Amino acid sequence: MKANMMKIITTAQTAAFFKENDNFTLICHANPDGDTLGSGYGLCGVLHILGKRARVICDDDPSSRFDFLKETIVPALSEFPPNATEIIVTVDVADIELLGSFKDKYPNIDLCIDHHVSNKNYAARTLLDTDAAACANVVWALIKELICEQELKTKPTAAAIAGAIYTGVSTDTGCFRYSNTSAKTHRVAAELMEYNFNVAKINYLMFEMKTRERISLEMEALSGIAFHFNDRCAMITLTYDMLQGIDPEDASNVSTLPKQIEGVEAGIVLKEKKQGVWKVSVRTGENINAQLLCSALGGGGHIRAAGCTLKGTLETVKSEILKEIEKQLYEESAI
Amino acid sequence: MKANMMKIITTAQTAAFFKENDNFTLICHANPDGDTLGSGYGLCGVLHILGKRARVICDDDPSSRFDFLKETIVPALSEFPPNATEIIVTVDVADIELLGSFKDKYPNIDLCIDHHVSNKNYAARTLLDTDAAACANVVWALIKELICEQELKTKPTAAAIAGAIYTGVSTDTGCFRYSNTSAKTHRVAAELMEYNFNVAKINYLMFEMKTRERISLEMEALSGIAFHFNDRCAMITLTYDMLQGIDPEDASNVSTLPKQIEGVEAGIVLKEKKQGVWKVSVRTGENINAQLLCSALGGGGHIRAAGCTLKGTLETVKSEILKEIEKQLYEESAI
Repeated sequence: MKANMMKIITTAQTAAFFKENDNFTLICHANPDGDTLGSGYGLCGVLHILGKRARVICDDDPSSRFDFLKETIVPALSEFPPNATEIIVTVDVADIELLGSFKDKYPNIDLCIDHHVSNKNYAARTLLDTDAAACANVVWALIKELICEQELKTKPTAAAIAGAIYTGVSTDTGCFRYSNTSAKTHRVAAELMEYNFNVAKINYLMFEMKTRERISLEMEALSGIAFHFNDRCAMITLTYDMLQGIDPEDASNVSTLPKQIEGVEAGIVLKEKKQGVWKVSVRTGENINAQLLCSALGGGGHIRAAGCTLKGTLETVKSEILKEIEKQLYEESAI
Repeated sequence: MKANMMKIITTAQTAAFFKENDNFTLICHANPDGDTLGSGYGLCGVLHILGKRARVICDDDPSSRFDFLKETIVPALSEFPPNATEIIVTVDVADIELLGSFKDKYPNIDLCIDHHVSNKNYAARTLLDTDAAACANVVWALIKELICEQELKTKPTAAAIAGAIYTGVSTDTGCFRYSNTSAKTHRVAAELMEYNFNVAKINYLMFEMKTRERISLEMEALSGIAFHFNDRCAMITLTYDMLQGIDPEDASNVSTLPKQIEGVEAGIVLKEKKQGVWKVSVRTGENINAQLLCSALGGGGHIRAAGCTLKGTLETVKSEILKEIEKQLYEESAI
């Protein structure tokens, strides 16, 4: 696929592409979250309603908490006839590198549906809305182009499809808490809620349910929390040994803990991925720029959430990070 | 005030009542939450815009996390001229008993604005919408009757007022997670978000920020958690000694912890209020009716969240509760 063949297309053009083709393989990004899975299963459900064959695949098995998303689909329509030409579609995948091993199996992507500013424009066609809080918002607009809501509402899988889109929107906005939440996000949520899916169950599965392993990890992490700079910085350390046998999803949720503590402006979590290799997660308040901090340490991210990887002993790594925080707290003006 | 003078009035009649009068004292319920305070400060701000004198009072000092709500008001308009006749209004107060000591100071309530099904109809006039997820929804409908949104948007306190109403709506729905959240809740949130208040800051203060004391209490509580009935029931005990010096708000937030654990159908928190007097909070999943359980123990509440007070030693109290749970789990059909 030549670079000049890559093009950005509209929602209407994307709908036409789906109507003209069949046998769609929808690929979610590896280490899948609610947005990539909700987008994939929501779209797959609508394609099945339209009589198309389609399936959702992912290089990593999704957590069982996402099992309910499968209610969107008609299993018989998830299998392709022999020798069918598959149309390859990615959902919520900014970069083909995020497909895991599937990037080698599916090197040519026919269509990418996404909302990331960082989208690498790797597909033959890309439907991209960087204003959308979630990829599921982009998919929802596409669904409304593919089928009128009045008709959708008569279908047995309609509630499950709306629930899948809701899952994407709510998980990517931290259940309407993050700053990417807009009036439009709530307006879309209102539209979806009219479909009467079990929203309390989805919210429990996505935002409340904690495994016993996660609770143990949280307690172990918090019991070793260290405060610096008059409690303006809190740091949690998860060593290689502590992380053995822990679900990566449980471990990643710990990243938000230190910043939640009253008065903390920089919340840092150090995870020892391999002996002597530390993944650093940084969450900051108004006075510290997480992106600047992590860039200085060879990483990157956003102004309030960023990360980097450092090598060394716990002591050298800690001191590198604290030095950068100190610079911002005491040497530079607030950003 | 005679019983037959108590009457339910409409939003338009309530708006007329505010326009015809002046010098309003808006009373929030004791142990104030985001809904009573957001409703009070949101309404007070609009009354100030209309040139009325009004103030918000509460028998208990609100937590400092609610300080931002004061940005809705004009301090000079919060003081009454000498010998003014005060109009007494309660917001989000189902029962005059919930005013704390203010129920003796203000025995005659001119107007009650509320959303509770359990409203005791204690005021001369009551504006009641039991379908509203929050009292702030009732106040928002009233505000739109008092001033047109186009005009409101031109006022310097408009964003703070919308933020106060948002605070009420979001706190009473658990940030759009609880089952009282409807399409309408999201539609109102969308209207409010158009006012461009700092929603990320409000969400941080309401839902993320934890005091160090709360984190310590959570850890202490979780370290003593006990599981029963093949892990279908989890129980946390906070003794009288553990609760000394703990903010009641911090302690009440612990009630949701055991039910969050994967597989737990009944999450129980026992708090020893006085030596030998236990406040029991029950949160349940689909197979256990919390209301039935607590009614059997002399308490009450809702189907998924209820409570009761029991006297005795920890052992006798525990065994009383476990006996009731066992009945529902093994002797009765799922409810």
